[in-house]
Amino acid sequence: MAEPTRSPLAPKSFPRLPVIAGLKMGSLAAGIKYKRRADLTLFELAKGSTIAGVFTQSTMPGAPVEWCRQHIRGGRVRGIVINAGNANVFTGAAGLTAVEDTAKSAAKLIGAKAGEIFVASTGVIGETLAVDRLITKLPTLHRKLVAKRWSNVAKAICTTDTFPKAATRTAFIDGNDVQITGIAKGSGMIMPDMATMLAFLFTDAKIPAPVLQSLLKSACNQSFNAITVDGDTSTSDTVLLCATGQGPRHKAVTNARDPRLKDFKAALQDLTRDLAQQVVRDGEGASKFIAITVSGAENKKAAKRIALTVANSPLVKTAIAGEDANWGRIIMAVGRAAEKANRDKLAIRIGGISIAKNGYPDPDYREEQVIDHMRGQEIDIAIDVGIGRGKATVWTCDLTHGYISINADYRS
Amino acid sequence: MAEPTRSPLAPKSFPRLPVIAGLKMGSLAAGIKYKRRADLTLFELAKGSTIAGVFTQSTMPGAPVEWCRQHIRGGRVRGIVINAGNANVFTGAAGLTAVEDTAKSAAKLIGAKAGEIFVASTGVIGETLAVDRLITKLPTLHRKLVAKRWSNVAKAICTTDTFPKAATRTAFIDGNDVQITGIAKGSGMIMPDMATMLAFLFTDAKIPAPVLQSLLKSACNQSFNAITVDGDTSTSDTVLLCATGQGPRHKAVTNARDPRLKDFKAALQDLTRDLAQQVVRDGEGASKFIAITVSGAENKKAAKRIALTVANSPLVKTAIAGEDANWGRIIMAVGRAAEKANRDKLAIRIGGISIAKNGYPDPDYREEQVIDHMRGQEIDIAIDVGIGRGKATVWTCDLTHGYISINADYRS
Repeated sequence: MAEPTRSPLAPKSFPRLPVIAGLKMGSLAAGIKYKRRADLTLFELAKGSTIAGVFTQSTMPGAPVEWCRQHIRGGRVRGIVINAGNANVFTGAAGLTAVEDTAKSAAKLIGAKAGEIFVASTGVIGETLAVDRLITKLPTLHRKLVAKRWSNVAKAICTTDTFPKAATRTAFIDGNDVQITGIAKGSGMIMPDMATMLAFLFTDAKIPAPVLQSLLKSACNQSFNAITVDGDTSTSDTVLLCATGQGPRHKAVTNARDPRLKDFKAALQDLTRDLAQQVVRDGEGASKFIAITVSGAENKKAAKRIALTVANSPLVKTAIAGEDANWGRIIMAVGRAAEKANRDKLAIRIGGISIAKNGYPDPDYREEQVIDHMRGQEIDIAIDVGIGRGKATVWTCDLTHGYISINADYRS
Repeated sequence: MAEPTRSPLAPKSFPRLPVIAGLKMGSLAAGIKYKRRADLTLFELAKGSTIAGVFTQSTMPGAPVEWCRQHIRGGRVRGIVINAGNANVFTGAAGLTAVEDTAKSAAKLIGAKAGEIFVASTGVIGETLAVDRLITKLPTLHRKLVAKRWSNVAKAICTTDTFPKAATRTAFIDGNDVQITGIAKGSGMIMPDMATMLAFLFTDAKIPAPVLQSLLKSACNQSFNAITVDGDTSTSDTVLLCATGQGPRHKAVTNARDPRLKDFKAALQDLTRDLAQQVVRDGEGASKFIAITVSGAENKKAAKRIALTVANSPLVKTAIAGEDANWGRIIMAVGRAAEKANRDKLAIRIGGISIAKNGYPDPDYREEQVIDHMRGQEIDIAIDVGIGRGKATVWTCDLTHGYISINADYRS
């Protein structure tokens, strides 16, 4: 497989990521689909690690998602096995057996229960996973685990991605610094619905699973659940957040509303938004990164729905690809969002310039004012729909010839 | 403006259309936006003509839609004025004044009330309509009206269309033959929501407005409301059905459930489906015409929603553009439709060939079986979701480089 061209919106470099106490990682080439590249990843976590997860809302979830959803309730994690190239979706009973066998094999190596092993797969749908090849490689992979090889594992989980995605933050809990670090993958089939493509987040803080779950869900709403590339929701979307509890000791946290979690929440929100935006920056064929903020909606949910409708409109996305501040198409998209909007109070700003207000083109607006902004790589659209106080921001990318080229060829 | 290349999916020729007793028509170049092409159309209808209409559900409707919605309740029509090139949408109070002035001018020429004149506009959003130019041309246009110039008027209402769209049917009512003939326009911004782009349907039958409204609504559900090009709903969608009552005399029909309307209903359904499919065949950049039938859904509405989700999936549409029978993407789209589906009973057929059944790839399926079908211009996808008896068919086109080229340039 030819190395795809790195997205023009990619960050300049891969970030420096810390060791997370209680976490080991590694990857290798198992030949699951790709040749000559790592496609199998293993994380091992210290005893007592807790886990939270959010998953695709698709009615056609993959076998790994079913497995994870079933065992996330236990709240305990010792290992995560991830393969790229085959999604193990729509593979019938064989698919679920493959996941079980994988979990059992990894559990034996780690000395854990199968229900403490989580599995994630992305790639082709409907092809039987070469699970024997995967299981055969696990012992070698397990022997080679190290405390830090972030760049390798971030690459090994990729499929059509053009760059590996990672981010890290520190947060205070109870006077101590803890680490939060995560990796993600995703480029197409991106409109997470209550979850996202794949993202694996790790912290050395000591946080019980139910609290972790609450923090993760809330962080996802304004990050992974606020992005879209093509409006298509994957069958494999999975975000896992694991806490090893091996960092600097801090008093136990038992409630998600504990004020000592304030900084941790903010850091987690910031980290997940960073990763989610990296997924958009790697959107298939993307040449522009677009932030769409809707205010004045009936409530938050309505604001988000309007923003996503604009973000998913092929007419808006192609206009931006053409560097055309075509606000008529924005109005069209707002109009079809099936949420309350007051046409006669509607206001639109692009790149901070007022384009329309009070249901009419702004008389002071001249197209020259936004030309430079439209030519840039970062496009800002702000829409006020004049109804209430609901506000939301979503992130997306433009729709270009690149998207068509990638998807009229690649079988995913 | 360069003549756009005729869609490869266009019908071979423009159909032969009959005179509709009680109807006159004409068009001319009013210079509203285009140069050297007709862009203004007028229909005049005999006294006593009735009308029904369905309109966009957008919360940002154009001024003409607001006018029509207000006056459709009266059920009487004497004229329809249509301009291309400017949608008169998001033009504030000036937009509504422009529609009123147009209606009053046409009413004066025809000798009718303003509320019996209907107005439709498509084209650029947010630019003031050159209504003076339009009104100045109306007397000349009115003098030139003739009983039959279908091809000219069908062309004059077009914007980005690559061919004019028309269809005709005859139907028996009470032992007499009546005519139903219609024209339509539309190519992008097509996912009608309870209505469609523009379509004007005429019959010489004698049918009161409330009955006409009921027949039209029901016909639209399985025609104009069952198509999508890009999932974007226009702000101008309008379908009008007018009955002159000037055809062969038949006894009055007072109820939409009257058994004498059976043949008329079937003909109207057939005619609207024909026109709707022509709109899809002129979908921006389209190279394939795609029919998607969903069966086994919870009910009709669920079936349609699943079918539309598949039809609007950019990943499904690009796969078909690439002539790839990528059923994994179909499963993905079914999964995100937010309607009940039984993964373990799901069945997919493409071009009549069974690809997947019982939640598993069909063991007898080989990709070679569908290669010829995928290379053709007409793609058939049938999906059974294994829940109930709900069934629906929708029509769409593929997503190609042509769509991107058209929409990264054209300002609509």
